[in-house]
Amino acid sequence: MYNLSDFGSYTVPGRAIAVTGRAPQEVWFTPSTSFTIAPNGTYLIEHAYVQFFVPANRNPLPPVILMHGGGMTGTTWETTPDGRPGWLHLLLAQGFEVHVVDGVERGRAGWCALDGVWEGQALQRPLEEAWALFRFGAKADFTRRRAFEGQRFPIDRLEVFARGFVPRWTTTTSAAIAAFAAVLERVGPAIVICHSQGGEIVFSAGARRPELITAVVAVEPSGFGSDVVAWQGRDVLAVYGDYQDVGDGVPDLLRKGRQWRDDLGAGGKDCEILHLPEQGVLGNSHMIMMDDNNREILDTITVWITDKHPAQP
Amino acid sequence: MYNLSDFGSYTVPGRAIAVTGRAPQEVWFTPSTSFTIAPNGTYLIEHAYVQFFVPANRNPLPPVILMHGGGMTGTTWETTPDGRPGWLHLLLAQGFEVHVVDGVERGRAGWCALDGVWEGQALQRPLEEAWALFRFGAKADFTRRRAFEGQRFPIDRLEVFARGFVPRWTTTTSAAIAAFAAVLERVGPAIVICHSQGGEIVFSAGARRPELITAVVAVEPSGFGSDVVAWQGRDVLAVYGDYQDVGDGVPDLLRKGRQWRDDLGAGGKDCEILHLPEQGVLGNSHMIMMDDNNREILDTITVWITDKHPAQP
Repeated sequence: MYNLSDFGSYTVPGRAIAVTGRAPQEVWFTPSTSFTIAPNGTYLIEHAYVQFFVPANRNPLPPVILMHGGGMTGTTWETTPDGRPGWLHLLLAQGFEVHVVDGVERGRAGWCALDGVWEGQALQRPLEEAWALFRFGAKADFTRRRAFEGQRFPIDRLEVFARGFVPRWTTTTSAAIAAFAAVLERVGPAIVICHSQGGEIVFSAGARRPELITAVVAVEPSGFGSDVVAWQGRDVLAVYGDYQDVGDGVPDLLRKGRQWRDDLGAGGKDCEILHLPEQGVLGNSHMIMMDDNNREILDTITVWITDKHPAQP
Repeated sequence: MYNLSDFGSYTVPGRAIAVTGRAPQEVWFTPSTSFTIAPNGTYLIEHAYVQFFVPANRNPLPPVILMHGGGMTGTTWETTPDGRPGWLHLLLAQGFEVHVVDGVERGRAGWCALDGVWEGQALQRPLEEAWALFRFGAKADFTRRRAFEGQRFPIDRLEVFARGFVPRWTTTTSAAIAAFAAVLERVGPAIVICHSQGGEIVFSAGARRPELITAVVAVEPSGFGSDVVAWQGRDVLAVYGDYQDVGDGVPDLLRKGRQWRDDLGAGGKDCEILHLPEQGVLGNSHMIMMDDNNREILDTITVWITDKHPAQP
C-alpha cells in the first residue's frame, strides 16, 4: 500500500534554440493526415524531467533524488525486470519523498533531432555490451546466457531489462550537469542516490552547490567529477557489487572509487566505500537496484543515511 | 491524497534486430571514461512503456489506458504545465485503475539510433507550430503571445508545456499499433482515453481486438484507422474543443470526426461527437486535458463512461 499526499511531474529548464533559414517540408503525420512542416522556429532542449512522490506518512529526512545511469532513464528505479518493487517503491515504503529524474536527452526529457546541435551521434547499447559491461556474465557466455556463478541479476529477464535502454549522446554531460543542478535548486537540500554515469553528473553538480546535497549514495559511479576538493568532509557512500575484476574490457569501478577516496585525503573521513563482497554479500551486478537482494541493500543504504542524519528529537 | 494498492511500470515487446558487419568504435562515455563500442549485436526496439496506478479504493469499472498524441509522451496526462492535477490524478481520485503509455519511440520507450531501421527522419515540433496546430492562437500572434479570445490553455506556461515534446518518426505507426495491441492484451478489457495521433493508433489496434476495448474516449483524434466497419455498434465518445475552423492550415478535426460517424451509418448510434462549444463550453484548445476546465471535462467523460457501463448491483 502506498499512501501518497501528492505525486506528479515537472521539468527544469534547459535552453531554447532558434532555427532559421530551412525550407518548409511536407510530411505525413498519420496515414490520413499530412502537414507542411516549417522547421524554422524555437525548440526547447536540454531540460530534465522529474516525477515525484510524497508519502502521506513522510519521514523527517530530506527528500531523495534518484539519478539514473547512461543510456537509461528513471525506470531504473521502478519495478524490476522480474516484477519486484524497485528502490522507488521501497523508499516510499520507508517514508521518503522521492524525485525520479529523466536526465537531459533521456526518456521523457526528450532529445534533439536537429542536426548539428550536439557533437557526435547518439549511441545505442546492444544486449551483448550490456551483458559484459553490467557484469552479468563473461562476454563469451552471452549466446548461451550463462551468467557468472551466483549472479543475482534476473538474467532470464534480460530482454525486459534491455527495453529500458535509450540512445544517448556522450557529448551532453555539461548540459546534464546544469539540469541536475536545477533539480537540486528545486528540491534540495536533498539526499541523492545515483547510478553509474549519473555519478559523474551528480558529483559535478554537487561540487557547485554543496549546500543542496545532504549526502550522496553512488551506486557504482562511472566518475566523481573533476573537483575533488569540493567533496572533502562530505557524506558519500559508494556501493559496489561483485565481479569487479572480471576483465573483458569492463572498467574496474571499485578501483576508481578507492582512488577517489584516497584523493580526498583527510577530507575523506566521511566517504565510505562499500564493496559488498567484503561484507560477505556476493553475486551483485552493476544493476544492484534490480538484483534479487535489492531490498536488503537499500536497507543498508538507508541505515547509513539515518546514522548520518538522525531525526531531530 | 492518493491511496494506491499498487503502482509500477512494465513494457510490452516490440522486436529484436541484429546488427552485423560494423567496425568497433572508441567512444568517451564520460569525461573520464572511454570504452570501445562494438555496434554489432542485438537491439530491442518498437516496444512500449507503461506506468500503472491502482487505487486502494478501486471502482468497479474496467481499467483506463491513457494514450498520448504525436510528439508527446505519457506526461500529457500528468501535472498540467501550470501545476494542476492532470487527468491521471483525477481518474485515480475517481477510483479508476490507470495505465499510462509511452508509445513506440516516445519517452521512456526509447527510440532507435541505428541508421536505416525506420524510414525517414525524426521530426521535432517547434513552439511556433504547436502554437498554431494546438489552436492556442493565430499563427501571426505567436511572437506577442496573444492567444485566441477566451483561451483556456495556460498560455503563460507555453515553454513548460513544450518541454514535454519529443521527436517522432512518422513512419512507425504500424509498430505503434502493434505495441498498443500488446498493451490491450495485457490490460484489457479496458476503457481507452486517447489524444490526437493516439486516436489513429488506438482505433487501428482496437479494430483488431474489439473484445479488449470496452469504450474509447478520443480527444481530438487525428484519425480513426482504416477499418470503419470494425467500430460499428461500439461505444465511442469523441471530444472537440473550440476554434476548430481557425484556418492557418490547422486541420478541422471536428469535421473529420463527424465524417467518421456518418461513415459508421446505423452502426454509429453509440458514437457520440461532443463538440464542447455546442454545449456552451468555449475556449478549449487541442490540449483539453491541460486546459483550465480539465476537471469539468473529465467529469463529463466519466459520467458518459458510467452511463455506458453502470456498476453491477
